[in-house]
Amino acid sequence: MEKFEVHILGCGSALPTLRHNPSAQVINLREKLFMIDCGEGTQLSMRRNHLKFSKLSHIFLSHLHGDHVLGLVPLISTLSLLGRTQPLHIYAHAPFEELMKPWIDFFCHSVPFSVEFHTLPKDNALHLIFEDRSVEVHTIPLSHRMASCGFLFREKAPLPHIRRDMIDFLHIPVYEINRIKQGEGWTTEEGEFYPHERLTYPAERGRSYAYCSDTSFCPLNAPLLSGVDVLYHEATFSKADGPRAAQTCHSTAEQAATLAKNAAVGRLVIGHYSSRYEDETLLLNEASEVFPHTELASEGMVIQL
Amino acid sequence: MEKFEVHILGCGSALPTLRHNPSAQVINLREKLFMIDCGEGTQLSMRRNHLKFSKLSHIFLSHLHGDHVLGLVPLISTLSLLGRTQPLHIYAHAPFEELMKPWIDFFCHSVPFSVEFHTLPKDNALHLIFEDRSVEVHTIPLSHRMASCGFLFREKAPLPHIRRDMIDFLHIPVYEINRIKQGEGWTTEEGEFYPHERLTYPAERGRSYAYCSDTSFCPLNAPLLSGVDVLYHEATFSKADGPRAAQTCHSTAEQAATLAKNAAVGRLVIGHYSSRYEDETLLLNEASEVFPHTELASEGMVIQL
Repeated sequence: MEKFEVHILGCGSALPTLRHNPSAQVINLREKLFMIDCGEGTQLSMRRNHLKFSKLSHIFLSHLHGDHVLGLVPLISTLSLLGRTQPLHIYAHAPFEELMKPWIDFFCHSVPFSVEFHTLPKDNALHLIFEDRSVEVHTIPLSHRMASCGFLFREKAPLPHIRRDMIDFLHIPVYEINRIKQGEGWTTEEGEFYPHERLTYPAERGRSYAYCSDTSFCPLNAPLLSGVDVLYHEATFSKADGPRAAQTCHSTAEQAATLAKNAAVGRLVIGHYSSRYEDETLLLNEASEVFPHTELASEGMVIQL
Repeated sequence: MEKFEVHILGCGSALPTLRHNPSAQVINLREKLFMIDCGEGTQLSMRRNHLKFSKLSHIFLSHLHGDHVLGLVPLISTLSLLGRTQPLHIYAHAPFEELMKPWIDFFCHSVPFSVEFHTLPKDNALHLIFEDRSVEVHTIPLSHRMASCGFLFREKAPLPHIRRDMIDFLHIPVYEINRIKQGEGWTTEEGEFYPHERLTYPAERGRSYAYCSDTSFCPLNAPLLSGVDVLYHEATFSKADGPRAAQTCHSTAEQAATLAKNAAVGRLVIGHYSSRYEDETLLLNEASEVFPHTELASEGMVIQL
């Protein structure tokens, strides 16, 4: 199967510690890199995880709190020094472009590539914000202290597999195979028509990954996340700190797990830990009680889909 | 002797690597912390070196290249979250305040302490920019691609030591000792006057530390740096890369050592290494040939003065 993996570069929260970096992830989908959030130090974590800057094309920012965005100017500065030429696309809520422009102009001067800003909608809805041959990216409505959204990466279903036995039996030339994979049928010299479905069998379904951080508990998102293979959800607080979670518009581990259970996702990965927990086993235990297929995110972790 | 130490938090140059952080240092002078430059990730390095945020009061920025300043907003954000109340003083060239204000307002909102900007003069001269009971800080003229200056920390001479034997002999009461240390003499009940100099002996001279980065070779700075205890000087390039040093307004290791020799400093510490050198022994060797008391800076190093 083609590569679809998620690199956790940072899964701490606002106060950075020596245990956890601020939020950042990189999705490697068929050797194209998509970044979600970019806290301070993200460029170094990319190096640590052997992720090539040249393959990075799109950056999606969930919201404009410092621990999710302050690594971006240093990253752009480095891309400039490395002589990048291909455009870099940044998806963020307003007024990010306005804030960034003077800093990019000053600190990354003579940027040899274009930085394209895409403003994320502020309404709380599902929007298709990016699409290419292999993936669709949708926003996920979240609820935080400022405009915030998650991101749903849905791989497009791969082309169907060709039925080798039929190809051989019908003597179909190799150069026709691609057309058949795309949906065509085949007519023999005798005029007999074989529809597409008889010449192929369906490929695996497209895989999916959802990122939800920062947010308070949004139970209404369950249908939207239904059946995703991996859900990364913030679990900033433990059950005992529930009031603090509600007050700061964050989730508890139990709430993350409840959503995972209601959406019947494949696996749940929790992160965005408050710095108050020296050991996140407590959060893991609370989530696992509700949804057993839960894992703790950690820096350097690579999730294979 | 009272504490005067320099913590090297970053001694790499513009391209961050897994070996070196961008520029940052913290001087601990009698338990008060002064920061010089603040590249990305500096706050984490402070934690790693067990330097307390609450003791940090003044930050001096040599110039406005990203690798010297991009850790500042994340640091201020953290100080805010920690509930700091005492003011933070930042010394930098224009237009730093103008650039920073919108970012601090947006990303560190409701900062519970005042951030006081002090604009550094752009002329290439020695200026006294800060002074308290224990230290004077002067700018050092440098030559770079933009306004840039070094910093000279000169400890004020400590108060003289009291001569215990004289105090006992003359039956001087304990509560008078401080006045005598400050320069007063003493008159006995019989009217005999003992001048200050007979009651004390001189303390050690004040120690001094100079930071010069980023800059091309400035041989005219030798008199100004004459006799400083420790000189930190950038040595971005080796002799073979001299043309590149000249072109980018940086120094070679040999040039740093030449200045150290001409100024007859106590020790030279070199840093701001170009990322092209996997091993800086080459730079150390080139400098040591000219000035033997040379050391390589490294992250976590603590220089005792």
